[in-house]
Amino acid sequence: MSYESSPWRQRLHTVIFEADTRAGRTFDAALIVCIVASVVIVVLESMESIGSRWRRELFLAEMAFTVLFTVEYVLRLVAVRRPLSYARSFYGIIDLLAIVPTWLSLILPGAHYFLTIRVLRLLRIFRILKLTEYLSEAGVITGALRASRRKISVFLFTVLALVVVIGALMYMIEGPAHGFDSIPTSMYWSIVTLTTVGYGDLSPKTPLGKLLASVVMILGYAIIAVPTGIVTSELTAARGRGHSRQACPACGREGHDDDATHCKYCGAAL
Amino acid sequence: MSYESSPWRQRLHTVIFEADTRAGRTFDAALIVCIVASVVIVVLESMESIGSRWRRELFLAEMAFTVLFTVEYVLRLVAVRRPLSYARSFYGIIDLLAIVPTWLSLILPGAHYFLTIRVLRLLRIFRILKLTEYLSEAGVITGALRASRRKISVFLFTVLALVVVIGALMYMIEGPAHGFDSIPTSMYWSIVTLTTVGYGDLSPKTPLGKLLASVVMILGYAIIAVPTGIVTSELTAARGRGHSRQACPACGREGHDDDATHCKYCGAAL
Amino acid sequence: MSYESSPWRQRLHTVIFEADTRAGRTFDAALIVCIVASVVIVVLESMESIGSRWRRELFLAEMAFTVLFTVEYVLRLVAVRRPLSYARSFYGIIDLLAIVPTWLSLILPGAHYFLTIRVLRLLRIFRILKLTEYLSEAGVITGALRASRRKISVFLFTVLALVVVIGALMYMIEGPAHGFDSIPTSMYWSIVTLTTVGYGDLSPKTPLGKLLASVVMILGYAIIAVPTGIVTSELTAARGRGHSRQACPACGREGHDDDATHCKYCGAAL
Amino acid sequence: MSYESSPWRQRLHTVIFEADTRAGRTFDAALIVCIVASVVIVVLESMESIGSRWRRELFLAEMAFTVLFTVEYVLRLVAVRRPLSYARSFYGIIDLLAIVPTWLSLILPGAHYFLTIRVLRLLRIFRILKLTEYLSEAGVITGALRASRRKISVFLFTVLALVVVIGALMYMIEGPAHGFDSIPTSMYWSIVTLTTVGYGDLSPKTPLGKLLASVVMILGYAIIAVPTGIVTSELTAARGRGHSRQACPACGREGHDDDATHCKYCGAAL
Repeated sequence: MSYESSPWRQRLHTVIFEADTRAGRTFDAALIVCIVASVVIVVLESMESIGSRWRRELFLAEMAFTVLFTVEYVLRLVAVRRPLSYARSFYGIIDLLAIVPTWLSLILPGAHYFLTIRVLRLLRIFRILKLTEYLSEAGVITGALRASRRKISVFLFTVLALVVVIGALMYMIEGPAHGFDSIPTSMYWSIVTLTTVGYGDLSPKTPLGKLLASVVMILGYAIIAVPTGIVTSELTAARGRGHSRQACPACGREGHDDDATHCKYCGAAL
Repeated sequence: MSYESSPWRQRLHTVIFEADTRAGRTFDAALIVCIVASVVIVVLESMESIGSRWRRELFLAEMAFTVLFTVEYVLRLVAVRRPLSYARSFYGIIDLLAIVPTWLSLILPGAHYFLTIRVLRLLRIFRILKLTEYLSEAGVITGALRASRRKISVFLFTVLALVVVIGALMYMIEGPAHGFDSIPTSMYWSIVTLTTVGYGDLSPKTPLGKLLASVVMILGYAIIAVPTGIVTSELTAARGRGHSRQACPACGREGHDDDATHCKYCGAAL
Repeated sequence: MSYESSPWRQRLHTVIFEADTRAGRTFDAALIVCIVASVVIVVLESMESIGSRWRRELFLAEMAFTVLFTVEYVLRLVAVRRPLSYARSFYGIIDLLAIVPTWLSLILPGAHYFLTIRVLRLLRIFRILKLTEYLSEAGVITGALRASRRKISVFLFTVLALVVVIGALMYMIEGPAHGFDSIPTSMYWSIVTLTTVGYGDLSPKTPLGKLLASVVMILGYAIIAVPTGIVTSELTAARGRGHSRQACPACGREGHDDDATHCKYCGAAL
Repeated sequence: MSYESSPWRQRLHTVIFEADTRAGRTFDAALIVCIVASVVIVVLESMESIGSRWRRELFLAEMAFTVLFTVEYVLRLVAVRRPLSYARSFYGIIDLLAIVPTWLSLILPGAHYFLTIRVLRLLRIFRILKLTEYLSEAGVITGALRASRRKISVFLFTVLALVVVIGALMYMIEGPAHGFDSIPTSMYWSIVTLTTVGYGDLSPKTPLGKLLASVVMILGYAIIAVPTGIVTSELTAARGRGHSRQACPACGREGHDDDATHCKYCGAAL
């Protein structure tokens, strides 16, 4: 049965994937409520005082939402022209990950906490609310990150190499007696310090350890400037590109603002 | 009785809202002193050693300031041409919030700590001291923040979604035995870690937990670069826009680039 | 006795204030050694293991350096043409602050720890080593900070107002039972949190307190972006200004690089 | 024996230093595996549970890798045209440092932890994978850091001077009773605070100490903006410079702005 010959599939597509009709908007609103409610249920279940008293009710609600989302997932597969390309898309994978954990938890206890992945379904809100402008802003940010992904790789690799070397040094200096009981633990400490998080669950006790820690902290100070600098210069450049694409038809010069209607150099209409 | 026909209301307006006459300046100076003093009193009252000894005196002083500010608020309502639009304005709401808590505390004990909202009245200082330049600087900052509010919304939503997912994962890995006794607690931990605050009241104990924490910290490292990049590129752009104070002689509009020789809106020579 | 009629004062001036002659360079080198040594002595004295054993020797060394610096200070006053303007200058005040504490400590015990102010004398090193380029770099930084001092004032005032309001709220929520025993203590906590330092000596225990703390942390995340944005946009602007002062003699356009020898628009020699 | 007259040395050079032939690629892949494995072994050895049980095996594996790397180092010296200039190069020094510790540890126990320096050998990966683009990105970052090294020196010196002065003040205010038992310890605290790491192993207990700490934290807030601003403005400038890939047809020099129509060095039309 071809897609064109089944009007009910087209109708389903309109309701589920679009938000222009009244039925579509109602469906989307109900979906958002369900997503938020299902995440809240998982969170509530984890709280001792609430989880122990309402365990049965919460479990039933979770199952209900899972059945609902499973039906929705199947309907989406049916409604869409190319089911496989939907199943492989970003939203398709999230929609699947949102239902798998409950079914898994019937076999593996504990697996249902992965249900919080459902929160990612909230990303649909942006789409549903037609906030495409918001999506384009997200695009600017991810674009800036993508444009600087090589700089960020080099940066991350350097940081990781530093973490291993600093971790090994600190393990030698402080040793298991002061809590630095292996190189991995010391590496964890050096990440905690370089990122300026500083829990304080591990901290140097010897003078030499404190000296090295001080150097690491000042290094972290300098290092934190690098990703900020990279992202900022990308964002500034993205803004620059966004503003100046139009050339004047009279003098041919570029660099006009988005709201310009006349060339700022020769006064010709743009 | 119309506003125009009552010269005493106009006189009152000059004294309370303006700072050009001597009476107006005296009023403003007295107001600043009262605001600072009333905030200091609330702070002092909270200190055990001082609060217990001078409780009566502090209470009386607080009541005195509240009566004073209430009178001032009523006078402002009377003096202004459109009382309702003042009452709804930013300063009008702050002026009201500065007096409500004391009256409330006569019924609800403890409510008077909200009095510290009075500190916001200090914002009047900028206005009073005619530091309009300072206000324009504040305008540049808030303008930059407003211009990037969509980017910031997308960013905050992404961070919150991350916080829920990381919180659920950490709850599974570490569990109540290591202090992560519910998903909300774990979410609190992931905010503490992502923002690089790192109290250390909760910290991972298992190797897997430390590994996830390390990833979260390096993620926080990268994430902190994003708001900085957004604000910086907005401020840099605002500075660029700020350079062009020249108005077009033909259409009167502003916002031209420094190198513009023709108005970008109507094409007239600048 | 006039300045011109005393060649020995001019000779003294050359030795002490300039570094072009051999005597001047020797004097400067000796001065740097003395400054570093005197700071090291104060630091060593504070260390229990060293301070208790060598107390006498360290005290004598400290007195010797103080006498030396006092003589130097008097000589500077004598050598300079306008003693009062030297005494009031940045370096003049530092030179005085470097000797006062020891003399004070003969009366007030403990005052000699202020001697570490001597470290500021090290700023002379930049001057002595004729690293004027370094000074100009420092000038760029301080210039950027000065240009943005109004933005920074507005920012700091807003942060302080936030600190008072958050402190009062947290005092009400957590209270003395959880360590928040007065509004000043709570204000200290909110500074520790907003700046992302996060000692962990105070941390929220109640769910509501953790919720407020989370909001404060994310706020701190956003707020930290503001000073960075301000300084960065000033530095970028300073760089822009530094590069483009020269106008082409043929076409009159600006914006040439520092190393340009021909106008990039018309090709005329600059 | 000259380099040209020994075809086997040229063959060796192709295999070891280049990655165009099949033998070269195989050699490089094997090398990366060995480097990663040797670092993992050192890390595993430090873990109590693993190190105590497999001590002998790990020691033998470490010796094997060291012998391997020593052979490789000697072969590199032989294969290269100018052995001394290789030995002094960045990679040459790292290659040597990667083997010295094991040989040293036969004499000095514990020295073999320096083996983690081997991780730096991983930098070869970038080279091996022909990711020259990645290297050029690294070049942009290090270039930005180098261009701002004077600003960074001034900045670091100022921070260190602040650290000494703040450390001495805090030592006086809090004293050994609250853990600040010497000026170096206080200096460590002020670095922990200024960099916003905030372990919490040391924190002020007295009201005056908390006040000073608050000032230091807000100072740290402002200070952290400076390196970020420096690096960002350098990266933005580097990006600006990077846009101009056009070489002058007359003099062949690069570095022209995007809007240049004439070479800024010789004035020829571009």
